[in-house]
Formats: sequence, structure tokens, C-alpha cells
Amino acid sequence: MDSCVTIAMAAEEFELALLHVNYGQRTQTRELMAFENIADFYGVPASRRMVISIEHLARIGGSSLTDTHLEIHDAERESRGIPNTYVPFRNANMLSIGVSWAEVLGAEALFVGAVEEDSSGYPDCRETFYDAFQRVIETGTKYEHPLRIRTPLIHLSKEEIIRRGLELGAPLQLSWSCYKSEERACGVCESCVLRLRGFRRAGTEDPIPYERYPDDDLLR
Amino acid sequence: MDSCVTIAMAAEEFELALLHVNYGQRTQTRELMAFENIADFYGVPASRRMVISIEHLARIGGSSLTDTHLEIHDAERESRGIPNTYVPFRNANMLSIGVSWAEVLGAEALFVGAVEEDSSGYPDCRETFYDAFQRVIETGTKYEHPLRIRTPLIHLSKEEIIRRGLELGAPLQLSWSCYKSEERACGVCESCVLRLRGFRRAGTEDPIPYERYPDDDLLR
Repeated sequence: MDSCVTIAMAAEEFELALLHVNYGQRTQTRELMAFENIADFYGVPASRRMVISIEHLARIGGSSLTDTHLEIHDAERESRGIPNTYVPFRNANMLSIGVSWAEVLGAEALFVGAVEEDSSGYPDCRETFYDAFQRVIETGTKYEHPLRIRTPLIHLSKEEIIRRGLELGAPLQLSWSCYKSEERACGVCESCVLRLRGFRRAGTEDPIPYERYPDDDLLR
Repeated sequence: MDSCVTIAMAAEEFELALLHVNYGQRTQTRELMAFENIADFYGVPASRRMVISIEHLARIGGSSLTDTHLEIHDAERESRGIPNTYVPFRNANMLSIGVSWAEVLGAEALFVGAVEEDSSGYPDCRETFYDAFQRVIETGTKYEHPLRIRTPLIHLSKEEIIRRGLELGAPLQLSWSCYKSEERACGVCESCVLRLRGFRRAGTEDPIPYERYPDDDLLR
């Protein structure tokens, strides 16, 4: 959903080229379908879609998103530190691929749908991380006018992201957020709860199907 | 060769875990063989060897190392800007994988055999790039005591690297540097010439087989 709204924002200013990264996560088939559907929605040609697998991140391990021996915990009211869904340094791996492609395309900006506040507390979703990565781009590429990383959602709440998406006509019905399931969203993992809470607070219905809904106090 | 000497230096202080990255380069079969041979030499167990393919870098393109439609130019006496063997942002892609693995292992240091001065002028071999990447690690991982990037060769000449390797008993005969060939090194690509010039200046013979040798004035 965050990526979908980010694409809608990027489309206001730029011609799009869309990168999708499989990293061996449990829901990668469903996420890839979401990617293709959203790319179709925005009329992005095949030459400007890139699907890349870094399933070695699953081999490296360390996360419940990629290691089915680890349990994905249901969301709780109070978060306690960095959850086990954290995939070590995942976003740096994705950004690096994005920068490689952007450099070949000669792109001006690299949009990422990272969210700092209203999120799971992953270290690679913080603004300081993206500021530091910007410096890596400036020192490590041959650009004369370096590519700019843009993280327009970084300080938005899920509610604000959804409102912004609705204003821009982003196809939220095509997006997928669940960590666990691919047919109907599970409704209880951290990602489902953050999403459902955002829709509740934005005063609108989430258009995707859910297996079940979390306790009402988690959504307030 | 640079990686080989870096491993020899790391082995002085640390227990080794070795990462090899295929990125769709022309000589990847030969380089993988060098990796396994060097890992055997240092007695690194299979559980601490990681071989990862990021052949999508070849799909992204932009480099003569991965795109056989582009010619790898022979070395010249005077370099002119960044050569077409530059693989866009390759080292950031490799470092990101290394950091993901290091975070799961709980490693203290990440050694990289990058060389700034006596090299081809790739932007992602400069010390400023590694300093910037260190900051990315500090902001984007969950380490309490962040992993340190170590680039012990960064300011050494090839001659000094070879001398250091010989002092430490590094198995230079198992290393591979040629960009073009896998049976006998071509002897004329930039990487062969930098290597051969280093051996010449160090006053010793390169133990690997060459197809031919470059003009003598390139080696002085």
C-alpha cells in the first residue's frame, strides 16, 4: 500500500520506471501480482518494469518473513523493540539494485515508500538511514548530478497515507500488505493491523478481502 | 588478488566467513573456482562460505564486464575517466549482502579488498564511499555496536598489495584478476596490466598463466 501511494505521488512529477524485488518472503507471489496490476494501472511498459529476485536474503536468514521456522507474531498494542519480521538490511539491498538501474536509466529520482513513525520500527525505515544512503550515492556512482532518494511517506501516518492515496486516485484495491497469506489477508499480523487501523482512522473501508478482523481495540 | 590479500590480513585477527558474489561477469566460473580454492587454503568450513548470484546486475546492464555487446578495451597508458568495465553501483550491492549476512552472524568487521589509488577509478572504490556506507550501517541495522567496514588495501599500490600478500603467505597463485578469460589470463585487459605491473614492480613473477604479455612500457 505504501509503495502504491508512493507510485501515485511519483507519477505526478515523473515518467515511471518500477522495480519489484522478491526477497524470498512468504507472500512473494501475491506481492508480484500486486506489482504487475499496479504497473498495468499506471500504463508502465514492460521495458520500464524490473522484477528482481534476491532470494539469497532468505538463505542468509534472520527473519520470520523469510524463514518459515520462525513464527510471525500477531500484532500487539504495544510494540517491543524490533520485531522478528525485520529482514537484516533488506532496504539497503533493494536501494542498491534501484540505484544500479537508475544509473543505467539516467533517472533523476528514486522513490521509496518507507514510513518511519507509524511503522514497525525497522532501522532501515528511518529517515537518517535514507540520508546516509543519499551520501553513498553521491560518493559511489558516476553521476554528475546525483540521483535523489525521495521518501515522501517517511513522516506520514498510515491514515495520512491512505487519505493521500485516495486523493490521488491510487489503486489501493490492487495493493497487498499481509505478511502471512496470499488469498485473503490474515487480518492479524502487524502489517494487516497497521493497514486496517489506518483505514479505520481515515474513515473508509479497506477494499481488499480479509480472512478475519483483529480485536476492535487494536484498531483504535 | 586484492580479495586474496585482504583475506590473509583478516585471518590475522578474525575467524573468517567468506562471501563470494557472482554478478553475471564474463569470468564468473573462474572467479568462483578461485574463491573455493582460497577458502580451502584457509580451511573455511562450508557453513562459513556464502556464494550468491546477483546476475540481475547483468540484466540491468551498463557495463562491458556483464554485457558481451560492449567491448572490454585493452589497458592504456593514460586512463580517461571511468572505464566501461564499471558496473553501476556494484560494490554497494555486494556490501549490502555482506552486511545482511554479517548482521545474522553477529560479525565484528566486514573486510573489502577495494583499492582507491592504483585502480581503474571506479567511484565505488573510493574511501569516501566506504565512509558513507559505514554511516548507512550505523543507521540501518539493529546492531548495538555496529559492524565496522575495513578496507586495508584502500591506499596501497598494487606493488604494496603483492608485497604484503607475499609476507603473509597469501595464496596468490589461486587468485584470478583477468576480466576476459578463464583458462589463461589475457594479459592485456586493464586488470591484467595493473596486476602484472604490480608484480614487476615488486620484483617477482606472477604465478598464474598468461596467454600473452602486454608491451613492456605498460608494465613500467
